[in-house]
Amino acid sequence: MRGFYIGRFQPYHNGHHRMVEEIASEVDELVLGIGSAGDSHTPRNPFTAGERVMMVTKSVVDMDITTYAVPIEDLERNSVWVSHVQSMSPAFDVAYSNNPLVIQLFSEAGVEVRQSPMFNRDVLEGAELRERMIRGGNWESLVPAPVVDVVDEIDGIERIQRVSDTDATGDESDDPE
Amino acid sequence: MRGFYIGRFQPYHNGHHRMVEEIASEVDELVLGIGSAGDSHTPRNPFTAGERVMMVTKSVVDMDITTYAVPIEDLERNSVWVSHVQSMSPAFDVAYSNNPLVIQLFSEAGVEVRQSPMFNRDVLEGAELRERMIRGGNWESLVPAPVVDVVDEIDGIERIQRVSDTDATGDESDDPE
Amino acid sequence: MRGFYIGRFQPYHNGHHRMVEEIASEVDELVLGIGSAGDSHTPRNPFTAGERVMMVTKSVVDMDITTYAVPIEDLERNSVWVSHVQSMSPAFDVAYSNNPLVIQLFSEAGVEVRQSPMFNRDVLEGAELRERMIRGGNWESLVPAPVVDVVDEIDGIERIQRVSDTDATGDESDDPE
Amino acid sequence: MRGFYIGRFQPYHNGHHRMVEEIASEVDELVLGIGSAGDSHTPRNPFTAGERVMMVTKSVVDMDITTYAVPIEDLERNSVWVSHVQSMSPAFDVAYSNNPLVIQLFSEAGVEVRQSPMFNRDVLEGAELRERMIRGGNWESLVPAPVVDVVDEIDGIERIQRVSDTDATGDESDDPE
Amino acid sequence: MRGFYIGRFQPYHNGHHRMVEEIASEVDELVLGIGSAGDSHTPRNPFTAGERVMMVTKSVVDMDITTYAVPIEDLERNSVWVSHVQSMSPAFDVAYSNNPLVIQLFSEAGVEVRQSPMFNRDVLEGAELRERMIRGGNWESLVPAPVVDVVDEIDGIERIQRVSDTDATGDESDDPE
Amino acid sequence: MRGFYIGRFQPYHNGHHRMVEEIASEVDELVLGIGSAGDSHTPRNPFTAGERVMMVTKSVVDMDITTYAVPIEDLERNSVWVSHVQSMSPAFDVAYSNNPLVIQLFSEAGVEVRQSPMFNRDVLEGAELRERMIRGGNWESLVPAPVVDVVDEIDGIERIQRVSDTDATGDESDDPE
Repeated sequence: MRGFYIGRFQPYHNGHHRMVEEIASEVDELVLGIGSAGDSHTPRNPFTAGERVMMVTKSVVDMDITTYAVPIEDLERNSVWVSHVQSMSPAFDVAYSNNPLVIQLFSEAGVEVRQSPMFNRDVLEGAELRERMIRGGNWESLVPAPVVDVVDEIDGIERIQRVSDTDATGDESDDPE
Repeated sequence: MRGFYIGRFQPYHNGHHRMVEEIASEVDELVLGIGSAGDSHTPRNPFTAGERVMMVTKSVVDMDITTYAVPIEDLERNSVWVSHVQSMSPAFDVAYSNNPLVIQLFSEAGVEVRQSPMFNRDVLEGAELRERMIRGGNWESLVPAPVVDVVDEIDGIERIQRVSDTDATGDESDDPE
Repeated sequence: MRGFYIGRFQPYHNGHHRMVEEIASEVDELVLGIGSAGDSHTPRNPFTAGERVMMVTKSVVDMDITTYAVPIEDLERNSVWVSHVQSMSPAFDVAYSNNPLVIQLFSEAGVEVRQSPMFNRDVLEGAELRERMIRGGNWESLVPAPVVDVVDEIDGIERIQRVSDTDATGDESDDPE
Repeated sequence: MRGFYIGRFQPYHNGHHRMVEEIASEVDELVLGIGSAGDSHTPRNPFTAGERVMMVTKSVVDMDITTYAVPIEDLERNSVWVSHVQSMSPAFDVAYSNNPLVIQLFSEAGVEVRQSPMFNRDVLEGAELRERMIRGGNWESLVPAPVVDVVDEIDGIERIQRVSDTDATGDESDDPE
Repeated sequence: MRGFYIGRFQPYHNGHHRMVEEIASEVDELVLGIGSAGDSHTPRNPFTAGERVMMVTKSVVDMDITTYAVPIEDLERNSVWVSHVQSMSPAFDVAYSNNPLVIQLFSEAGVEVRQSPMFNRDVLEGAELRERMIRGGNWESLVPAPVVDVVDEIDGIERIQRVSDTDATGDESDDPE
Repeated sequence: MRGFYIGRFQPYHNGHHRMVEEIASEVDELVLGIGSAGDSHTPRNPFTAGERVMMVTKSVVDMDITTYAVPIEDLERNSVWVSHVQSMSPAFDVAYSNNPLVIQLFSEAGVEVRQSPMFNRDVLEGAELRERMIRGGNWESLVPAPVVDVVDEIDGIERIQRVSDTDATGDESDDPE
């Protein structure tokens, strides 16, 4: 029995980890799909797919079940999304998500999808976490220790702070793109 | 004389239908271009191109003029938009639109474009219609009967309500993409 | 009961037409998917999607069943091809094809697909037909009359002959792309 | 010593020109990268790449240094952005930018990047300039004279006013895309 | 010390495995990049990225070093290829390849790349292997046992034979795309 | 009067230069479109757009007319090709080409296109030139002197020889993409 759980993991945090631990009690193997794989260096998506593969892999290394960390590019075409993730992933029997779009797409495709209400996720929101990283707040307590290591190693705090800036000179700059 | 009228038709509604009836008095044949053909399953674009082909085709079947329903993908490149729709459509002599961008692009390309001020479109706004579908209001009176049939057949109300949801568990979910 | 039949239709010819007539005896409605919709102006794909919509629509206008002519762009991703054509087309119950890749993809997706051995298609090969157009041979007898009209109207023979040329000056030209 | 300076140049204005004059004192040659090359006909990006090549080229023609105006398409993938601009441009030694994202990407790639705080850019903001064009205010004084000529030649004011409109009939139109 | 080795792995075979075993003696961790991730269902690329992730992962599971199997999509832009694989992969110190293009791209980017002449690879050519699968020859002896299991589980031989066919009816079919 | 001349310029050679000299007698300004801008590092397209901008710019610097070197990406959609090059280029009055496809596309769009039979181009074929570069033959005499400088500066001969190789170890390598 193989499960599938997709998220952007920007970065992988304790909320994700508890979801993974819950799923691990129901499956033998788990595929962690790393969505928006092509996005990086923005306030909402600061880390590359490769950096997120590291975060995820090192955070789940001690779990009993077999895990796969698979980057999945956006095709920006919802009607083929399920077929796309199925082609990028080892075959899975059940998907896990609390995201309404993901739930609807899997349902229409006849793939079993399970939801999970069990977590108070306010503090664990990716947005809250990235906000703390930008402001210089306490972010380390919101993620597994291996994620702290990876973020430090890639100078991730410096990166997210810089790309969240207005003009480095203080003026609003002329956006080149 | 062939006319061209493009819209997203999410879904095809009475405002569109009156525009088509007005155009039908001026042309022999009409191409209905279904724009953003690749978009679906979002609050603003809930239906696939194929579903919209059904809605349009069944709504205009009894008209005297010959009609074509042609999905047109977004190339996201305004400078080639006119060439693109011309390549996807049977050749047309005049375009109909109230959209400023469309009017400007056709004008720059030397294609005749006609506008139509005649309709009070507030209630017939696609946004208003989709809002009623989401809220469970009276949407059926805003569309031709065949559109009601198609939407019911594809469980369209359920779909637009679900993809408009925040987290299905009530929390704001971690967006996977 | 709705059928689906996809081809490039470059151009729509008598072999296609016999396939359509055979299918028409088994379904109530038929979707003709016009593949490689974005390709044109090459020896193998001389006509635009819009031109092919014209050829198909005018050739099947007198048939008893309801038909739809729908251009379908290449996504160049076989693993999502079935989902893609399903999103671009009115829902269909059975697909018709003699193409091995198409048959395999529909089969893997659990969509019923029917093949048709009944036609001697040598002379009706699209390649043979285009070769005659290029050489100035008798091509008109290989296509329905409406197709002859459309091709003449768009100066299609001149186009396919020119784009099949080596350098217009007789030398092999420096290919700009 | 060759410098690189990228902007959207919608349009090229006096703020850009002063940046170029400052850079010209530090390099022998300068590449002006015209970003978002594929975007046009919107309120924020009204002009095509070709039109911007004209504006830039004619505005810098009398400078002592050799300049290149090179359109650069968006790949929408920050992780390869530096490699992309390097492949589209003559090789450069130093980049100039005040944009935080650009500065971060060049820094991570080990390319020297210089910032410039010296200009009061409020009035020279591209957004302010486009706003004046839309409102019919005094925009000519914010750009080099050759840019006025190019904009007039292409009916640029008419274009940006029209694409900034709501529905040309006064109603909010049904957006076709 | 982390190494990087990219291949299409269509499928993963003994030649690949010996390369991996050789690399394993030189690094602590190894990333196996699965190239052309978006390609499948063709004679040259029969298996999806997900299926290849399975083949690779199960074949290297008993090795001492930590391995990552990462699908990498084609961007079809050689000038950004190195940046792209670096963004999709955990950071690596050395790349392994015998492919001239890959070697040249890594060299130009200043990434250390090692080649390996040690293997007689004639029989281990992916092309030879796929040819045997198509002809019904002995392919199982050319791949690790787990790969045989995966191929059998997905009916891979049936798939590659079918998509390698000419027309299923024996005639050369009209290619829909 | 502005002319437009597009080629891949891989690399810019004496045949191109004579065409440019001939065109220069008929126009006041000339745009040199550098086609397939995104392609590089292959035997047929060894140089990046930026490298080709250098070759072209330095070769025409002493001409009397004003010239623009503009990279143009492939959209792989012939039906919008003319609109695309027009959006990327300063407005031009006449195009120059000997390529049948280019001539046909400009003709259909109503753009004046002129051909040129005057040159014996056998030795000046891009293919012949690249073949000599690969074999180590005399290529320098086929290109303007500035092109020799640029190619030497970027180690262009080494690059084209390496990417034209079979496996660097002498075996045919497993193509990663």
